[in-house]
Amino acid sequence: MNIAVIGLGLIGGSIARDLKSQINVNVFGVDENRNHSNKALELGLVSEIISLENAITKCEIIILATPVHIIEELLPTILDKINIDHTVIDVGSTKSAICDAVKNHKNRGRYVASHPLAGTEFSGPEAALKGLFNHKKNIICEKELNENDALDTALKVFQSIGMETYFLSPEEHDKHLAYVSHLSHVSSFMLGLTVLNIEKDEKQIFNLASTGFESTVRLAKSNPNTWKPIFLKNKKYVSEALENYIELLKDFKTKLDESDDEGLITAMKDANEIKRILK
Amino acid sequence: MNIAVIGLGLIGGSIARDLKSQINVNVFGVDENRNHSNKALELGLVSEIISLENAITKCEIIILATPVHIIEELLPTILDKINIDHTVIDVGSTKSAICDAVKNHKNRGRYVASHPLAGTEFSGPEAALKGLFNHKKNIICEKELNENDALDTALKVFQSIGMETYFLSPEEHDKHLAYVSHLSHVSSFMLGLTVLNIEKDEKQIFNLASTGFESTVRLAKSNPNTWKPIFLKNKKYVSEALENYIELLKDFKTKLDESDDEGLITAMKDANEIKRILK
Repeated sequence: MNIAVIGLGLIGGSIARDLKSQINVNVFGVDENRNHSNKALELGLVSEIISLENAITKCEIIILATPVHIIEELLPTILDKINIDHTVIDVGSTKSAICDAVKNHKNRGRYVASHPLAGTEFSGPEAALKGLFNHKKNIICEKELNENDALDTALKVFQSIGMETYFLSPEEHDKHLAYVSHLSHVSSFMLGLTVLNIEKDEKQIFNLASTGFESTVRLAKSNPNTWKPIFLKNKKYVSEALENYIELLKDFKTKLDESDDEGLITAMKDANEIKRILK
Repeated sequence: MNIAVIGLGLIGGSIARDLKSQINVNVFGVDENRNHSNKALELGLVSEIISLENAITKCEIIILATPVHIIEELLPTILDKINIDHTVIDVGSTKSAICDAVKNHKNRGRYVASHPLAGTEFSGPEAALKGLFNHKKNIICEKELNENDALDTALKVFQSIGMETYFLSPEEHDKHLAYVSHLSHVSSFMLGLTVLNIEKDEKQIFNLASTGFESTVRLAKSNPNTWKPIFLKNKKYVSEALENYIELLKDFKTKLDESDDEGLITAMKDANEIKRILK
């Protein structure tokens, strides 16, 4: 089985690494960034670097792991060139815009819209981790548009790297992810910026930063070139989530300024309910 | 050496546990909450539960680890009753209000204003962890007001549980902590609330919550009864930090709504600078 991974960053690199360790799988890499492709080869994430054209000729499974706006650009041109032996999978963090871009394509049935929920704040092939996806959740959207064998192939790929798959519409996916992932990233980026702006004496941040701060600000290290297109492609819901978040922060600030004991306690107790939901 | 720990929650319980494991140290616990004191005894965090009066009679070192507003109340009455053989240490997360409450006390020299920077989102004696403070940083404020032997005793206590001590004024401490700890807690509480408000279908949060979300929302599990007094006692700086944070979030939202590619990238790249500062 020949598999091509297009985009050899954190996500693509980690998928490649896990697939390449499986019996009877050859993993080919495609990446326009020469530094990334050299590094991926050097790290053994892929067996060979090839062109996109060759990937389509050579590989039955094509996995798109570039930033989301590039997935949206590449996907229709790839679907133009494939046949019924191909399965094309994307792993982008937004789904509506990508699904819209190919919704009337004659080969839509061969494309499985996916989002494996895993990652770290690091990026590039050096950040690729063995087992990153193990015991994590994968989302597939619009499975009703898939030919059965293409869907089965995709399910098998994700299962083979340890993932359980759930099904959502692209709209549901994008809304939920805005709240449980994208908002966390904005919150963290801006927390980092707030502290950097005020604390000109860096030594003190370093000295005083506790584990609580490290945990909330961790995502501020994430790659802007990955996240800008995610935010823009999911603008409607990220903006809505951000507006709700800002309103709650303003409410909390008012309660604080007014020393509203009961209001502060109620807000925090309500937030504590997150315990029930997370492990 | 007899040591009393007053307040047997996460912080007091963890300090008690580490001190009790040391040669020639007896640790006595004081806690008005009967459930806490019973639990602390059952877990072996302390050797005995005694009254505050007895603690002052029996113990050379008295460590105050209650919520900060209770420290502010208890500290003057404790200083009233001690003599030159006592060292009183508090471990509260705010310092200005507490230091102000005793600044003219005749026994001010026996009191060492401290803040060991460690914690988790859990609370109560069950949350007490062995080694919580190891390799972490401790702050002492107004050391110039201390009698030398009292300061030495406090430094030894923190060193014995693995901490390195830094010195700041109460004002500097409270400002820095507002940014690198207290703001993280507000940000996390409100992030939890935003998601809970929008996601009525809890199953979906559970299914979709990624490790990024878990890390940014972790502190939303923290104890409101610990954090309300911290926020109120450090109102000036927490409110200032929150205002700066809200402004940056609003700016980012505007950039997003206007699809300002360059503005978004710049904001995130600036936030990335946090990498240089954190490990």
